[in-house]
Amino acid sequence: MELLSVRMQIPDGANLILGQAHFIKTAEDLYEAVVNTVPGAKFAVAFNEASGPCLVRIESNDEELRRAAAANAQALGAGHSFVLLIRDAYPVNLLGRVRDCFEVCSIFCATANPVEVILAQTEQGHAILGVVDGSSPKGVETAADAKQRHEFVRKIGYKLQP
Amino acid sequence: MELLSVRMQIPDGANLILGQAHFIKTAEDLYEAVVNTVPGAKFAVAFNEASGPCLVRIESNDEELRRAAAANAQALGAGHSFVLLIRDAYPVNLLGRVRDCFEVCSIFCATANPVEVILAQTEQGHAILGVVDGSSPKGVETAADAKQRHEFVRKIGYKLQP
Amino acid sequence: MELLSVRMQIPDGANLILGQAHFIKTAEDLYEAVVNTVPGAKFAVAFNEASGPCLVRIESNDEELRRAAAANAQALGAGHSFVLLIRDAYPVNLLGRVRDCFEVCSIFCATANPVEVILAQTEQGHAILGVVDGSSPKGVETAADAKQRHEFVRKIGYKLQP
Amino acid sequence: MELLSVRMQIPDGANLILGQAHFIKTAEDLYEAVVNTVPGAKFAVAFNEASGPCLVRIESNDEELRRAAAANAQALGAGHSFVLLIRDAYPVNLLGRVRDCFEVCSIFCATANPVEVILAQTEQGHAILGVVDGSSPKGVETAADAKQRHEFVRKIGYKLQP
Amino acid sequence: MELLSVRMQIPDGANLILGQAHFIKTAEDLYEAVVNTVPGAKFAVAFNEASGPCLVRIESNDEELRRAAAANAQALGAGHSFVLLIRDAYPVNLLGRVRDCFEVCSIFCATANPVEVILAQTEQGHAILGVVDGSSPKGVETAADAKQRHEFVRKIGYKLQP
Amino acid sequence: MELLSVRMQIPDGANLILGQAHFIKTAEDLYEAVVNTVPGAKFAVAFNEASGPCLVRIESNDEELRRAAAANAQALGAGHSFVLLIRDAYPVNLLGRVRDCFEVCSIFCATANPVEVILAQTEQGHAILGVVDGSSPKGVETAADAKQRHEFVRKIGYKLQP
Repeated sequence: MELLSVRMQIPDGANLILGQAHFIKTAEDLYEAVVNTVPGAKFAVAFNEASGPCLVRIESNDEELRRAAAANAQALGAGHSFVLLIRDAYPVNLLGRVRDCFEVCSIFCATANPVEVILAQTEQGHAILGVVDGSSPKGVETAADAKQRHEFVRKIGYKLQP
Repeated sequence: MELLSVRMQIPDGANLILGQAHFIKTAEDLYEAVVNTVPGAKFAVAFNEASGPCLVRIESNDEELRRAAAANAQALGAGHSFVLLIRDAYPVNLLGRVRDCFEVCSIFCATANPVEVILAQTEQGHAILGVVDGSSPKGVETAADAKQRHEFVRKIGYKLQP
Repeated sequence: MELLSVRMQIPDGANLILGQAHFIKTAEDLYEAVVNTVPGAKFAVAFNEASGPCLVRIESNDEELRRAAAANAQALGAGHSFVLLIRDAYPVNLLGRVRDCFEVCSIFCATANPVEVILAQTEQGHAILGVVDGSSPKGVETAADAKQRHEFVRKIGYKLQP
Repeated sequence: MELLSVRMQIPDGANLILGQAHFIKTAEDLYEAVVNTVPGAKFAVAFNEASGPCLVRIESNDEELRRAAAANAQALGAGHSFVLLIRDAYPVNLLGRVRDCFEVCSIFCATANPVEVILAQTEQGHAILGVVDGSSPKGVETAADAKQRHEFVRKIGYKLQP
Repeated sequence: MELLSVRMQIPDGANLILGQAHFIKTAEDLYEAVVNTVPGAKFAVAFNEASGPCLVRIESNDEELRRAAAANAQALGAGHSFVLLIRDAYPVNLLGRVRDCFEVCSIFCATANPVEVILAQTEQGHAILGVVDGSSPKGVETAADAKQRHEFVRKIGYKLQP
Repeated sequence: MELLSVRMQIPDGANLILGQAHFIKTAEDLYEAVVNTVPGAKFAVAFNEASGPCLVRIESNDEELRRAAAANAQALGAGHSFVLLIRDAYPVNLLGRVRDCFEVCSIFCATANPVEVILAQTEQGHAILGVVDGSSPKGVETAADAKQRHEFVRKIGYKLQP
């Protein structure tokens, strides 16, 4: 067994949701999950079929994201994993719907940060072991940092500013 | 620390759902989740108790699946992990209910493919790191492949064929 | 790439929920998830911001748990991971609410057992690969063990004793 | 405004789930919800389109249930209400999936009992006000009745009999 | 058909959750939902069986709440309705779990206010039509009222006070 | 007791979601539910406080919708009911999130159609009994109608057109 690190390709302004599912219908059901949640979102979902023809199964409404999602899925090479790239929508909008998709097992990460995926390679294939999502923390927030955090979340409107 | 690969035993026609939970009640709650969702499903759930007596805790309504689930759980040896084997039911029927179970943390995979589980072994015990689920993709689907996929999903009745 | 094992610090009587999320609002949303579910619970949530200032972001209502959560998050050093420590509440009370939090991707474990987290370290940062949660199983339960298990779960009131 | 009572037609051995939704896609999404949950279930869903052509929109895999669902939907005449009739499956299998359907607002009842639906009729149309589901209680259970209830639920396998 | 108004009996300090479900297992499943969510909550659930023996089916861990829940269920007399009375817990803690219960169709109200339930009475039985929950609004809040509201919700700790 | 019919005011291009909840925090939590789901949505939520000051509690990011939501809530006069008006978003995007809101009991309707709400008025206050949502069905769809329905849902992109 060998360990590998594969870097995900995340187009400018896009977010990545990386997960594990279990059936080729995943591509179509995640398409519906996005389209039914955020009107106007651009996205592509690529799912690694893991038996039979073993093709990367894709649904998308954006050519650039489609190419990137397919490339990421192939780079991972892990059966039943999926890559969802989104623009004009954010993971916070979609994670619940992705998780509730009939075929989805788990979500490894959701991020716009640089992502390295740690894989194990065996004779049979690849396993996703984990994800380096952005950078490690440099310290613990102070009361002033926490205040700034609260203000930022309120300034972008995600929480109310009473 | 050492890395191991353990192959899951999946009886003919069965599917495997592999996950992490946190309390011996998991065995009983997953039993209820299956029984309340798919009438007539055959299944076995084995949960690795991780403190005290440290026994593999099992509920099932099928002897063959029970033996296989117990063997898989022991082969994994990872505390608080669970193995659910099902027949006459499919992961797509059950994943939502399994995930909503009060004790379930996450689901590593759901599959009828050959499965290798990658484990880390420390002095304390075993950690599930990831899963090789079936084979790696051999290429990206073409428009013709996508058409076949859509037709197949509709032929088996999971989506409507207008 | 190097593999590391990091031991979590779980104060007496506390439980740990360890997961992956994706935005600094996670700290505040998990605070609300706990406060809105178990009246009187003591807890701390620490989230590893993975871009910009890269600070450990914390919300809590208990000083000891706050220090331990921050120390655990720093020891992990994995971007977008979170540590939730709770007292006077149990994972079974909270897992559903934690999972439904808008930002949460997945939950690695929920436990009061000794926990070792297996990490991969790359130049970019840390990835959580898996968790040794308590001890490995020592055997398979007998019918008598199962009876005791059923009785125990009923004695603590989690299932009815008809 | 006038109050009406309309009796639902429930074919032998079928169960009725009656609810409110909000878009013609409801028929197709409920079809998928059933098919993805209980393999082999027979069912029909009828949804009252409430604008434009105002047709009863139907998906089903059983002719008798289709006719009954259509007749019930027409008898109700309430915009955006839906009638789901199922055989070889039970409401307990399906309610969660029906509720999670993107278009579903609420579920009035789920039952195999005789059902009278109370409607208000205005110039504009019909409103479902409530449901007489079976009979009124004749008394409060005794300890012996409760014991029988627990035993029955366990005898049919929905709870474990330790 | 006749319309009735029935006043619910809510013991001091208790909250009422009133809903519709569809099987006698409801009583036991709601018992588990409460016990698994809020440690130490006092409660009683009464469910109106609507066929066969037609008994009020009850689970509880508090005698006063048991008597009140049974009295309310009998006063309603509506098949498949349930009454959940809770102390040392609040609807906000429990509504999600109650809604996710396998048997639950809908929740009419959750409140500590005086409650009148509007019923239709037919030859067959009773239908719950709706609920007068507390008092009607006396006006629209001003900016100052909104500020007080925000402060109150933060003072009781349900939202953070940055 | 008297029955009333009240017509909802739905501004051009807006959709209405009408429901029952149980605490003044509803206004703020529904605000967050919308903002975290559909970027750029315009909306207003009005909640009828049912005890103490008994004010219509409102959060919004659009003045016209705010006025309409407040007017609707006052016209209803039913304690603990809420009115959510949305533009640039659709009920299908939001219903799941609204339902999962900690305080929400049920959703009466979600629609852009003309809506009449049927109320009971007692000395204590108002109860929402049901909703006339658009028009009654004029007939049952033919195979050709069903084909058009399938095509329409696919043309607007909510389902895939294989």
